[in-house]
Amino acid sequence: MILSLNSINCDNNEPIDRTVFFISDGTAITAEVLGHAVLSQFPLKMKSYTLPFVSTVERAEEIKQKISEIYKKSGAKPLVFYSIISPEVKQIINSSEGFCQDIVQSLVLPLEKEMGIKASPKLNKTHGLTEKNLSKYDARIAAIEYTLSHDDGISLRNLDQAQVILIGVSRCGKTPTSLYLAMQFGIQAANYPFTADDMDFLKLPAELKEYQHKLFGLTIAPERLAAIRGERRENSRYASIRQCRIELSEVEALFRKNNIPYLNTTNYSVEEISTKVIDSMGLARRMF
Amino acid sequence: MILSLNSINCDNNEPIDRTVFFISDGTAITAEVLGHAVLSQFPLKMKSYTLPFVSTVERAEEIKQKISEIYKKSGAKPLVFYSIISPEVKQIINSSEGFCQDIVQSLVLPLEKEMGIKASPKLNKTHGLTEKNLSKYDARIAAIEYTLSHDDGISLRNLDQAQVILIGVSRCGKTPTSLYLAMQFGIQAANYPFTADDMDFLKLPAELKEYQHKLFGLTIAPERLAAIRGERRENSRYASIRQCRIELSEVEALFRKNNIPYLNTTNYSVEEISTKVIDSMGLARRMF
Repeated sequence: MILSLNSINCDNNEPIDRTVFFISDGTAITAEVLGHAVLSQFPLKMKSYTLPFVSTVERAEEIKQKISEIYKKSGAKPLVFYSIISPEVKQIINSSEGFCQDIVQSLVLPLEKEMGIKASPKLNKTHGLTEKNLSKYDARIAAIEYTLSHDDGISLRNLDQAQVILIGVSRCGKTPTSLYLAMQFGIQAANYPFTADDMDFLKLPAELKEYQHKLFGLTIAPERLAAIRGERRENSRYASIRQCRIELSEVEALFRKNNIPYLNTTNYSVEEISTKVIDSMGLARRMF
Repeated sequence: MILSLNSINCDNNEPIDRTVFFISDGTAITAEVLGHAVLSQFPLKMKSYTLPFVSTVERAEEIKQKISEIYKKSGAKPLVFYSIISPEVKQIINSSEGFCQDIVQSLVLPLEKEMGIKASPKLNKTHGLTEKNLSKYDARIAAIEYTLSHDDGISLRNLDQAQVILIGVSRCGKTPTSLYLAMQFGIQAANYPFTADDMDFLKLPAELKEYQHKLFGLTIAPERLAAIRGERRENSRYASIRQCRIELSEVEALFRKNNIPYLNTTNYSVEEISTKVIDSMGLARRMF
């Protein structure tokens, strides 16, 4: 059993209060994300094991054993967040010496009451591929491909197929945001950079002007931009705070002049920026 | 209020049994994913609204109103999955005519008992950027950048910095998987394609041979590969089932001969493929 250990609320070498297990018959991505949200509310130092694709009795027994060992060694019950459909496999995990919570089922039971019908558990396919969602999945892969071929202004053709076109200076977050929009939401997102050479007479290129209703601007604090650019080209004019200030103020003026909605990305993650773009542009938020 | 409606367990135009709301003071990505996992267990046709960044009393009142309207019109309580920290905002949603479930809190309460300490709720930062996780976030953005510059064999330099190198024929899923590994887990993933021209004397390029322990192969059913390639170049030799069969059998033989672990991706999503690669290669599964 290959196990990699991750830290929660602590650094790598600190002694810990509890061990945590995220266990799933699928990818365990949901158990992991939800478990982190829950545990971040407790002032404890923890380490976690993530165990995906747990679908056999043998594998479950192996994990139960591991939970036991940790309990015996530490004297504290490991915390277990799981999402497993098979009753046999689930029962083994539940009978372990961990403190076990079923992340999906705890929400299913109240719903059964409210709706007066029984749930029929199916193998965890939250992040899975099924015959039913295949065409949606293909659309998502096509969106990733579209986004890659329209990254960084590589191609200004087929912009009619873009659902959004992100614009901004170099290194303000356009590429990761475009890719996240495509990957998570199946959105065809193009992006276009303004460079230092554009600055003297900054205006929207004619190819973009035509699709003005699809444009969304990204901006960022000059200090953060200078730091990010410095990672790439230390002590360059490109990374100087002066150059960053000039470019950002020119581009922000352009956004305002053309009534292009924009967002300062300094304090936001790609997930947050993407969600805000979707919200602001009224895009469909497809689920996969 | 811009609202986009998504379908759950049904097609776009079917009449529905229930309306669903995913509400969060953050991106609502977790509420959405978990809610879908829960609702897929019920044989009901539903439509859902996803409402991120709900952090003010005004916005909550607006949503409460909307929930009321739908309840009055349909006679069925809308199902609400939420994750909100502010007690005032939360109380407004809870006092609506929806059937409301707090996705995080339902797991927090049992843990408070088990651990004998009170949780201290903080503004939902599951997918957020904080001073504490900034350096981890920067590493993730760097991984995306690395992966993009090592996509499709563009560059075989700096492969010492790759944590994994995916190899396989054109269109078997290398690019989306590499990007997902970088985006979700901060893994520097390079990828390298074998082309039709390589097939006569197929062998590992010397640049890859050096990093054999980092290699992971992807393969796929010839029928699915032909369909995917056909989307790109219909009726081409490239997309013919015969050509797909030849390339795949050559490449699979190469994987076996060189003891390279590999996965048939036909029935798996990028999430599943990525998780299996991480598992098989024993990579650290960092959380962001």
